[in-house]
Amino acid sequence: MKLDRLSAHQAFTDQMADSLITAYDMMSSDPRVRAIVLTSADTTNKFFCAGMDFNAEHRQNSGEKMYLDTGGQVSIAMQRCTKPIVVAINGAAVGVGITMTLPANIRVASKHAKCGFVFGRRGLCMEACSSFFLPRLVGTSRAMHLITTGAVYPASHKLLDGLFSEIVEPEQVVPTALKIADDIAANVSIVSVKVMKDLIFHDPRSPEEANLLESKIFHDMVRGKDAQEGVQSFLIKRQPEFKGTMEEDAPRMWPWWTSVDVKAEISI
Amino acid sequence: MKLDRLSAHQAFTDQMADSLITAYDMMSSDPRVRAIVLTSADTTNKFFCAGMDFNAEHRQNSGEKMYLDTGGQVSIAMQRCTKPIVVAINGAAVGVGITMTLPANIRVASKHAKCGFVFGRRGLCMEACSSFFLPRLVGTSRAMHLITTGAVYPASHKLLDGLFSEIVEPEQVVPTALKIADDIAANVSIVSVKVMKDLIFHDPRSPEEANLLESKIFHDMVRGKDAQEGVQSFLIKRQPEFKGTMEEDAPRMWPWWTSVDVKAEISI
Amino acid sequence: MKLDRLSAHQAFTDQMADSLITAYDMMSSDPRVRAIVLTSADTTNKFFCAGMDFNAEHRQNSGEKMYLDTGGQVSIAMQRCTKPIVVAINGAAVGVGITMTLPANIRVASKHAKCGFVFGRRGLCMEACSSFFLPRLVGTSRAMHLITTGAVYPASHKLLDGLFSEIVEPEQVVPTALKIADDIAANVSIVSVKVMKDLIFHDPRSPEEANLLESKIFHDMVRGKDAQEGVQSFLIKRQPEFKGTMEEDAPRMWPWWTSVDVKAEISI
Repeated sequence: MKLDRLSAHQAFTDQMADSLITAYDMMSSDPRVRAIVLTSADTTNKFFCAGMDFNAEHRQNSGEKMYLDTGGQVSIAMQRCTKPIVVAINGAAVGVGITMTLPANIRVASKHAKCGFVFGRRGLCMEACSSFFLPRLVGTSRAMHLITTGAVYPASHKLLDGLFSEIVEPEQVVPTALKIADDIAANVSIVSVKVMKDLIFHDPRSPEEANLLESKIFHDMVRGKDAQEGVQSFLIKRQPEFKGTMEEDAPRMWPWWTSVDVKAEISI
Repeated sequence: MKLDRLSAHQAFTDQMADSLITAYDMMSSDPRVRAIVLTSADTTNKFFCAGMDFNAEHRQNSGEKMYLDTGGQVSIAMQRCTKPIVVAINGAAVGVGITMTLPANIRVASKHAKCGFVFGRRGLCMEACSSFFLPRLVGTSRAMHLITTGAVYPASHKLLDGLFSEIVEPEQVVPTALKIADDIAANVSIVSVKVMKDLIFHDPRSPEEANLLESKIFHDMVRGKDAQEGVQSFLIKRQPEFKGTMEEDAPRMWPWWTSVDVKAEISI
Repeated sequence: MKLDRLSAHQAFTDQMADSLITAYDMMSSDPRVRAIVLTSADTTNKFFCAGMDFNAEHRQNSGEKMYLDTGGQVSIAMQRCTKPIVVAINGAAVGVGITMTLPANIRVASKHAKCGFVFGRRGLCMEACSSFFLPRLVGTSRAMHLITTGAVYPASHKLLDGLFSEIVEPEQVVPTALKIADDIAANVSIVSVKVMKDLIFHDPRSPEEANLLESKIFHDMVRGKDAQEGVQSFLIKRQPEFKGTMEEDAPRMWPWWTSVDVKAEISI
């Protein structure tokens, strides 16, 4: 899956947002998809995504109606997606270009990629749900520095420590991401990964709540077809063949949290 | 304190769980114990704990009763323990073998130890309260990668960064852990450490709540015998002799949180 | 801005607390201030702040009234301050000497600075709102080790990883902090930074809540004078001249959270 708007270094538009949301939702329900790699179409590996396109027209709020931040809608679609997502950041990722990757499972970056949470330099503020994701991903100390300076840093900078699982040569970014995705597709239960991703992001507030919640989920999962296959294949040392899907095999508890309803358009 | 089930690489059973819970509770209330080191009996330093023993019999849920995840019950007992705990991970720690160490105060690992949050490869999900502990300990970015691939990584891998305070030669794991535990036992107030551990895991949700809570706790502690001893010994530069216990010297606020009641067995 | 109490290595007193609170509040409302650097007056770079002054008189709780922890009051004033704060830790920072810097935006440390969360060695507990800030800043694994041993570590120790944005030669600490502060003052919107700092510390509890909150804030900010200036200067590649202040230009949503009321003195 590729961001493809080479004329503008993949700068983010309403249309790109709509396409991404549609794509994540389609791949969620397509049983042939076991893992997703997101990258950019830039074969020169200069830009993954240059950020919000200030030259493009955006849906305008009018009167008492406002559109919700489209970057945030994309992040929520990525978070909602039932398939593991690996992002191959093959070039610069600025503003929404980096914040829209935060709900992914894994990020691989080019050693020449630059990243900037530049909102303060535009007089704007965090978006794409990054106020939720960024401090959790890299810790509050690094997040605070990144948003305070709004500067652009190389992917290998220690302020970005933890954000990228691997930092490799530009031409190795996509192959590395594909290799990780292939390994996940071949060896890991999609249902397990989705349930655990939701456990991490909608996490219990105490060890005791975790014990209760995990026990109820475990009770269902251990009886599921993926656990039968996973444990059996492990015991006889063969490759597993997981066939579970969230549609058919999600534990009955799921979803265990109540989401705020976020329509694309709200009254103000 | 040693995991000792060499015939099965210390694989986790209901009996091991029961023993660990009993041990943590006993050492909590034994005034002679000032610090605990947990390791495995494997003198070859190959396995700390190989994970859940799928070959052993486990308590079965039946009808409308279910047993709570035993790994989680062990984690809660470790978290509840009033004495500081250092884990000496002298060999491979897989699945519950690593998640049951997450509520400890400090982890030391062998440079040859391998760790895996392998649940997704068995079609299962996070347990032992790791959905609470893991993202807090290593950050969400690393936690998400670890559970998504379910792969096994060397202790020194950057994805495990922060999890181990020291990574040393296999034969140095236990001596290093003992040295840390001795230093704690000799120089640190048990009451202080337990109260601060609870502050960190049942943390206030805002700076203002922190100021109120810390002030009330401080008000009691500064009058306690450990503070008298700690400040006085510091001022005249001698070693402190702390004698406080949670039974006698806990601040009146403690515990300031309400725990969900987790019985070992619940209705479903 | 300098901690200046050379006779006692800048040890912390009630008077120092009062001065710091007054200073943060004054600089918050002074429109000439665009960034703050806090350091110590110790030109030998030995001590940033030696911690609580146990030899000084402190306000005493009496009867049914208690004073709230003054370190926490200083932390709340730093957190409340509307201007970005860079701390230049030019020497040892022990106890409240380090915890009072945790709500800053950025910390720069001397490679010879030593830091200790020493409360357990005095029979005391975390203060200055550090039970809120420390685990968020460095992660729970490192925070737990630091408070359990109560030991003093060099700034470059991996247990402090993430706490300091830069670790430099002693004589470079203040120049480095000033350079960062100058860059922020010249290129970043004060309003943006304050709003994002509050987003990070009063963070939404789910991606959906983040999308709603960020959208409402964004709706106001994009119409603000700093966004007009920021986007326009970016498009024509000139330096921005931000003039926004929280007094005049805060988004209408701000503050979107309800703070517990913390008076300096409460009933017990």
